[in-house]
Amino acid sequence: MTDADVMALDAADPLRGFRDDFCLPEGLIYLDGNSLGPLTVAGRARLALVVEQEWGQSLIRGWNDHDWFGAPLRVGDRIAELVGADPGEVIVADSTSANLYKLAVAAMQARPGRKVVLSEPGDFPTDLYMLEGAIRTLGDGRRLELRPSSGIESALSPDVAVLVLCHAHYKTSAIRDMKRLTAAAHAVGALVIWDLSHSVGVLEVDLNGCEADLAVGCGYKYLNGGPGAPAFLFVARRHQDSLVSPLSGWMGHAAPFRFEDRYSPAGGIARFACGTPPVLGVSALECGVELSVRAGMPAIRAKAAALTELFISIVEAGPAAGLLELATPRDALSRGGHVSFRHPDGYAIVQALIARNVIGDFRDPDILRFGFSPLPLSFAQSARAAHILGEVVSSGDYDHPDYRRRAAVT
Amino acid sequence: MTDADVMALDAADPLRGFRDDFCLPEGLIYLDGNSLGPLTVAGRARLALVVEQEWGQSLIRGWNDHDWFGAPLRVGDRIAELVGADPGEVIVADSTSANLYKLAVAAMQARPGRKVVLSEPGDFPTDLYMLEGAIRTLGDGRRLELRPSSGIESALSPDVAVLVLCHAHYKTSAIRDMKRLTAAAHAVGALVIWDLSHSVGVLEVDLNGCEADLAVGCGYKYLNGGPGAPAFLFVARRHQDSLVSPLSGWMGHAAPFRFEDRYSPAGGIARFACGTPPVLGVSALECGVELSVRAGMPAIRAKAAALTELFISIVEAGPAAGLLELATPRDALSRGGHVSFRHPDGYAIVQALIARNVIGDFRDPDILRFGFSPLPLSFAQSARAAHILGEVVSSGDYDHPDYRRRAAVT
Repeated sequence: MTDADVMALDAADPLRGFRDDFCLPEGLIYLDGNSLGPLTVAGRARLALVVEQEWGQSLIRGWNDHDWFGAPLRVGDRIAELVGADPGEVIVADSTSANLYKLAVAAMQARPGRKVVLSEPGDFPTDLYMLEGAIRTLGDGRRLELRPSSGIESALSPDVAVLVLCHAHYKTSAIRDMKRLTAAAHAVGALVIWDLSHSVGVLEVDLNGCEADLAVGCGYKYLNGGPGAPAFLFVARRHQDSLVSPLSGWMGHAAPFRFEDRYSPAGGIARFACGTPPVLGVSALECGVELSVRAGMPAIRAKAAALTELFISIVEAGPAAGLLELATPRDALSRGGHVSFRHPDGYAIVQALIARNVIGDFRDPDILRFGFSPLPLSFAQSARAAHILGEVVSSGDYDHPDYRRRAAVT
Repeated sequence: MTDADVMALDAADPLRGFRDDFCLPEGLIYLDGNSLGPLTVAGRARLALVVEQEWGQSLIRGWNDHDWFGAPLRVGDRIAELVGADPGEVIVADSTSANLYKLAVAAMQARPGRKVVLSEPGDFPTDLYMLEGAIRTLGDGRRLELRPSSGIESALSPDVAVLVLCHAHYKTSAIRDMKRLTAAAHAVGALVIWDLSHSVGVLEVDLNGCEADLAVGCGYKYLNGGPGAPAFLFVARRHQDSLVSPLSGWMGHAAPFRFEDRYSPAGGIARFACGTPPVLGVSALECGVELSVRAGMPAIRAKAAALTELFISIVEAGPAAGLLELATPRDALSRGGHVSFRHPDGYAIVQALIARNVIGDFRDPDILRFGFSPLPLSFAQSARAAHILGEVVSSGDYDHPDYRRRAAVT
């Protein structure tokens, strides 16, 4: 792969124009958009407008005049386009964690005789923590059973109320077969909750094509919604009227401004809203989501596969080939938008890369993780990052006091 | 009360300088800071910095370099200064609704043999909706009992697990006696959750002086945190280690970045965090909170009493005296920062006032509500609004097609 080959990839990239839609520091190769997506040009302008004009000038009138009330459903409908859902099946609300709790409790209550929540160990832990919380609240003999990915299907039994899985693994990037696992769960009468945090905005997700029941996802990764952006949740239309959110707040009430004492859930997806929506966060998220809608998921997914392929192949052909262990599926269609390698000095290597203006992240105990957001990244950046990684690892230059791990790592 | 008298009040106002800390449209009298506080000058600058520099340039490094991780506890400690709590007893997180759910479930689980949650009808409804949700999740024969304010103490029995009350009523502005009611609940072994949404930032609250157990509150009213700002919660230190949040997300874990499969609650108030904190919202909130801390609650509370007193007394002395029914305690120390009147044409009157650049709000079925945020408001504005209200009501000028209620009111 010569420099000319890489330049040709960028020249032929149908998404290359989207790089101008992001604000990124000059010279930085940012491979952490899977953890915090970069600022969008539209988001920057929109936030200034929302702050100075909408909040500053319209004040309370902003709820109606700028449709702050409608934003969670409006942005939800756009996210729906990215994940194979229909309008009215997705809403922006709360955090991914809180949304998972809502759906887990609602799903368990919809399968009252079944005592098991089935999930996988070692994937993003907040999902398991929230399931623990949901089970602790519902009680009544319910329990969490964890099985490795390969054992999920054999663990599906008539005692399973709900199966909870991440679509793309936060460390390994491995993609679960949504259609097959959903069908397997349905065969025993269980519901499935998919966590799309590491797939929305980078992979093609077809919730309704897979007959998915429920899903949650993150707004601040590939959707580029900003730090701590609000999350979203999906409830298939066929389930909407039979599930009730435990977080039955006024924004999910059928008539919030009648100020009735009794809760009556809104029809449709709106019942899964809870408190007052975070207007600043939803506004920035909307701008990020629009970019993905405009680019289209097929092109985004194709570029994610090509960027990760380029990165892996250059590392494999370079001086660090025998020193890094690929922790990600080698087949591009089996992995998401990030690539992970194992190395016992992973922490120091990631620090050394940051010092060279290549930002990836480290995940305990030995994972170097590199995210390839298709819209802001070029093939040239991907290639250059692979070369720098090869140099740092093969030279041992990461073995430096500045790069050693401190006691408290966040 | 002459114009000169009113000018003298403003001249003697120790908080008059704070009016320059807010961005408000020229000529507008904004009496809805109890619903959405106005934009602060500091918040506007801070949000631009957070967006363009922190998110835009620091990207993922912002979590450590700009202490985004520490913000919920840092801002919580400042709010603690406003409500009579100690450092480490308040955290910013989620919405008021979600926080109430967390504390209600945790409190009920701490009193497992008791089946009753006691509250008051007709106060802000999301509190009741969340209690319904918490009870529906926990089940086991628990129930919500509602008693009018006057009957709360007699309804306290050994079957009450938790009493949930708003400190200042969202419609009438009446203040509950926190110390007496807390003591009465404790006498029967119940815990109390106080909703401070309509008192934080406008009234002197002394949670620890009242031996309060638990509290929640809103960030976007008198704290001026922006539309949909994150909320906060308080847990008295003596309860922190024995209560566990049902929303047991990774940000409340003892070591979130160890990515363990099992939930271990963090020590202290941090365990009541859930998902990733909303950085934009927390940043704007911090600027609003700082203003209240700087002004000091005694001065703020005194000005709230004086502003509402001036407003009521001018209305009472004016042409609408017999046409409006005061729905708020006449004694300044018994009411919060807002003043409500009843009128059968309340909706139209509020619209007519808005057309005259006086913004209050309407609450079903007949409440005209006017909020007096002490920091951005002057006595002259308060007096002028009272005169305009008197004119509109006494002239009948609100009886106009433009001011009639439309079918859907939000």
